[in-house]
Amino acid sequence: MWEPLLVFLMFCRSSQAFTNRMHSTRRSPLGIVHTFSGMDIDRSRVEAELKEASAFQNALRSHGAAFALFHGTSALVITDSPMKLAFHDAEKLQTLYEISLQQFEPSLTCISNDVGNSIPIYPCIALGASASGWAFAVDVSNRSRNEFEVKNEAEGNLRFEPVRALLATLNQRDIAMAGLGASTLAWHRQHQFCGLCGSRMVAVEAGGRRACTSETCRNRAYPRVDPVVIALVQDPVRDKILLGRQSVYRPMMYSCLAGYVGPCESLEEAVRREVKEESGIDVGEMSYHSSQPWPIGRGASCQMMVGFTATATSTEIHIDTNELEDCRWFSRAEVAEAEELVVARRPGPSDESSKTLSIPGPYAIAHHLIKNWLSTTKAPLQASGRNKL
Amino acid sequence: MWEPLLVFLMFCRSSQAFTNRMHSTRRSPLGIVHTFSGMDIDRSRVEAELKEASAFQNALRSHGAAFALFHGTSALVITDSPMKLAFHDAEKLQTLYEISLQQFEPSLTCISNDVGNSIPIYPCIALGASASGWAFAVDVSNRSRNEFEVKNEAEGNLRFEPVRALLATLNQRDIAMAGLGASTLAWHRQHQFCGLCGSRMVAVEAGGRRACTSETCRNRAYPRVDPVVIALVQDPVRDKILLGRQSVYRPMMYSCLAGYVGPCESLEEAVRREVKEESGIDVGEMSYHSSQPWPIGRGASCQMMVGFTATATSTEIHIDTNELEDCRWFSRAEVAEAEELVVARRPGPSDESSKTLSIPGPYAIAHHLIKNWLSTTKAPLQASGRNKL
Repeated sequence: MWEPLLVFLMFCRSSQAFTNRMHSTRRSPLGIVHTFSGMDIDRSRVEAELKEASAFQNALRSHGAAFALFHGTSALVITDSPMKLAFHDAEKLQTLYEISLQQFEPSLTCISNDVGNSIPIYPCIALGASASGWAFAVDVSNRSRNEFEVKNEAEGNLRFEPVRALLATLNQRDIAMAGLGASTLAWHRQHQFCGLCGSRMVAVEAGGRRACTSETCRNRAYPRVDPVVIALVQDPVRDKILLGRQSVYRPMMYSCLAGYVGPCESLEEAVRREVKEESGIDVGEMSYHSSQPWPIGRGASCQMMVGFTATATSTEIHIDTNELEDCRWFSRAEVAEAEELVVARRPGPSDESSKTLSIPGPYAIAHHLIKNWLSTTKAPLQASGRNKL
Repeated sequence: MWEPLLVFLMFCRSSQAFTNRMHSTRRSPLGIVHTFSGMDIDRSRVEAELKEASAFQNALRSHGAAFALFHGTSALVITDSPMKLAFHDAEKLQTLYEISLQQFEPSLTCISNDVGNSIPIYPCIALGASASGWAFAVDVSNRSRNEFEVKNEAEGNLRFEPVRALLATLNQRDIAMAGLGASTLAWHRQHQFCGLCGSRMVAVEAGGRRACTSETCRNRAYPRVDPVVIALVQDPVRDKILLGRQSVYRPMMYSCLAGYVGPCESLEEAVRREVKEESGIDVGEMSYHSSQPWPIGRGASCQMMVGFTATATSTEIHIDTNELEDCRWFSRAEVAEAEELVVARRPGPSDESSKTLSIPGPYAIAHHLIKNWLSTTKAPLQASGRNKL
């Protein structure tokens, strides 16, 4: 299951783009703060303060309330340099786009029987609280993108960009909010109807839940986070690592193996199974590295990427061609050269005939797993001074 | 969010019951194999071999095919000692319960427009392949439990038991299959209708997916696994740990703090947020311990419990009374005494006036987090010989 790796590669074929942010990765006392995490707005306050419909309505009208707009899996950005997620206040929403706060999806407490059939509504969810006020995400997928992209001078140049394409250009705060908004609104769109009874569902608790409008059902649905394991598989004897590629990757791009965690399997069992299924390689010991939220997964779902370093106990590769186009062992020299390309901000190979390995940029946990191996693993030959590099 | 902790405590109030299995926890070379993981049937073969409807139909009829029955979140068990998950072959299904393989939920390739309105159907999913053949789970919630519980001598005494109540009595293989069956069938029941268009959905890929029957929609839904963090919060200076309790726990039962991982937060951020929200305690460094699937979560959902040991950077507790009834720091002496109760298989305190701490049994990751702290953490005073115990 390569979806998780696919997503960050499909739209980031330009090395130039992704390296722009490579030195901006923030670190906490606990280690790496991955792209999409480290959001410096307070999410806890949404559940603590905005659960009631009236509180949410008040927050929409509060001082400093700011609205980011989403169209499908794209976010409205100001294309100046540096690029920024575009936020509008309620007045601007009205004057620029003729959207009033009254048009936001009604909550369960104020819907009528003809919910959704009266006025055009825009799903709106709370993202969190910042020092300047509440931040919201509004879904405008029911209108043409063009209506939002041509604006006056004061607003800057506005354009909808797929969140996947913004990985390398938005700052840590904005990319996390863009990912959260796009994935949560996508989840709301995919849960228009109750799975239990087929009735209409509506957003409640500031977008933190959906609730069935049938009074006999009252089912609730919760935003979904899919656990995914991603593993750096190393062969310490030969000082090599196992990387795979899909046909949609750019030429010679390889990355760590990854896949969804199934019901009733531990993270470790999922690593073992996925690596075996995709590459035929058996895995022995493994250790946890770090975790990265990835809100641009399958169907814009939010994944929880859990990264492991694992030691192979076999060497012979048997590729599952349904999942991978190729899978190989790469030497320390090859991986170090690929990492240097990222550091030097030089683009990777651009044609199929190239023999030079290319690896994902620092926006991806795979990059940090690989970099960690480069920095900490000492091969037997290296340790004795006979460095194969 | 205490749901994950709640579930294993509500139905296991008898210490006697849970300690029966305490020495049966299997270990892999990688460490603990938690309850609900370590299933010794091959799940991979379901996706690899049974995706097509025809392959699934053939597997149902194959030699050795065995069927476990579920009613709501309960599994049919043979109540002999030791208790076992009850499996029937196709012939027994017919003779004992008048269920034929033709009555299993039709797949997308063979449904008509009046899907679900013709004959009584039983949702059936593949659990995996064992040495003796394919194992399946069948949902018989549409019939009375009594019809299945009184059977002939040859079958033993059959009874539906909530999976939560079987934690301490079934062996590693059976409890994992019971959890997988109950939670996956519950997920199927909760996804009768398409969230996108409201049409009927049916099981496909041997129960690994659900598919919308609308030809214009074709939406697919995937079984859900919810990531949950659970943390042992320690204060190394005072040599204490932070444990909390809910009002539904048995008297003096306390456990680790836990909660769902939100979209766009890392596992580490979720630990920090949950501990802060529930107890007011700030958390600094943390390290990963292990992971446990927990298929008896909210609405019988399957959770992925990810366990951390975390170091507190503050001491003053502010309890969120919506989540917790109580939350306290416990000394090494108190925790060691509670662990001894489990080892000695003695029941914990049974009345509210007791002052003796009680902790969860070895079926729960919380137990192993606590035990790990007891075994590895050396308090400064202990190390110098002035043991506070």
